[in-house]
Amino acid sequence: MLISLDELNNYDRFYRANIINSLSGFKSASLIGTKSEAGVSNLAIFSNIVHLGADPALIGFVNRPREAAPHTLKNIEATGFYTINHIHTDWIEQAHQTSAKYAEDVSEFDACGFEEEYINNFFAPFVKASAIKYGMKLIEVVPIKHNNTFFVIGEVVMVEVPKELITEDGFIEIEKANSCCSLGIDGYYKAEKIVRLPYAKVK
Amino acid sequence: MLISLDELNNYDRFYRANIINSLSGFKSASLIGTKSEAGVSNLAIFSNIVHLGADPALIGFVNRPREAAPHTLKNIEATGFYTINHIHTDWIEQAHQTSAKYAEDVSEFDACGFEEEYINNFFAPFVKASAIKYGMKLIEVVPIKHNNTFFVIGEVVMVEVPKELITEDGFIEIEKANSCCSLGIDGYYKAEKIVRLPYAKVK
Repeated sequence: MLISLDELNNYDRFYRANIINSLSGFKSASLIGTKSEAGVSNLAIFSNIVHLGADPALIGFVNRPREAAPHTLKNIEATGFYTINHIHTDWIEQAHQTSAKYAEDVSEFDACGFEEEYINNFFAPFVKASAIKYGMKLIEVVPIKHNNTFFVIGEVVMVEVPKELITEDGFIEIEKANSCCSLGIDGYYKAEKIVRLPYAKVK
Repeated sequence: MLISLDELNNYDRFYRANIINSLSGFKSASLIGTKSEAGVSNLAIFSNIVHLGADPALIGFVNRPREAAPHTLKNIEATGFYTINHIHTDWIEQAHQTSAKYAEDVSEFDACGFEEEYINNFFAPFVKASAIKYGMKLIEVVPIKHNNTFFVIGEVVMVEVPKELITEDGFIEIEKANSCCSLGIDGYYKAEKIVRLPYAKVK
């Protein structure tokens, strides 16, 4: 069925949010770990994560408007560091629970039952249960003026990954660590590899 | 295994690109359709696509540096419109082939065997074979100065989706249209739903 802009605009708020969120396709499913200047750790679920480039190793994520999702962004701006931790298929509910609106002085690590892990004196807490996780240094927060969201750009400064999941050419078979995939606001998926294809050349 | 920034920096270029690309997790797998001012259609594969917000309905994607991926961005800037079309699990190789460096006067629709579809006089061509696709109007091209990539923001102005895949609350079960998922530079995956979870509340 064809949905026009007028029809989209007339949909109920939640129906519209589900349609638009699903439309852009499958996404990463990760927990971002931070720590405030006051020393309170924070953990929140994010799915809009993109690869920006490998050299320097830059990864971006979308943070919702400040009033909707304040703590992660505030901590990153104040301290400059954060961790991104893959969510596993066998603890999705626990990860999803971090999206509840906990007060600023509550750590979602405690509230949702995650163990903090500190690696090599890196400032921000990692999720111990995640097999694949990486430490990030803030590069730039780009405000998106059209809807008050933020595109947060960071540099990968540390990676933890099971050695046996890295193929000969550096590809990481993240599905073997049970890393899951997300769709829309609240859908969680398991992914199964179909194929890897060689570099495409003009025939 | 722990990989330090020094170790990352010392990896071979391709090995490093694979590691960093896989690390950020599963992504959308889509073809972006455009048409140049001269009337040449263009089709290119993109995976770094994010949901920015539902009202207005904004979706962003990452375009590599201009010299690496010139045509899609040039056409969008010149004409203001583009289409995003889901890639199906049964024609991944054909979609991947659009990443070859075709000359500006060659249409990847022709070169890779895709049929163009024009819907309701929308300027940019859709991919006829895609069950789920949407028409986009350019809102802003944000240059990322750290690596010369671009974050391209557009508004959804038209949606085509099989009615039977939309659930009662607007969620689209895109896996039922065989929409695939991508990982890293060249990995393609099939996704299977595990669960949708209710809105999380503080317990």
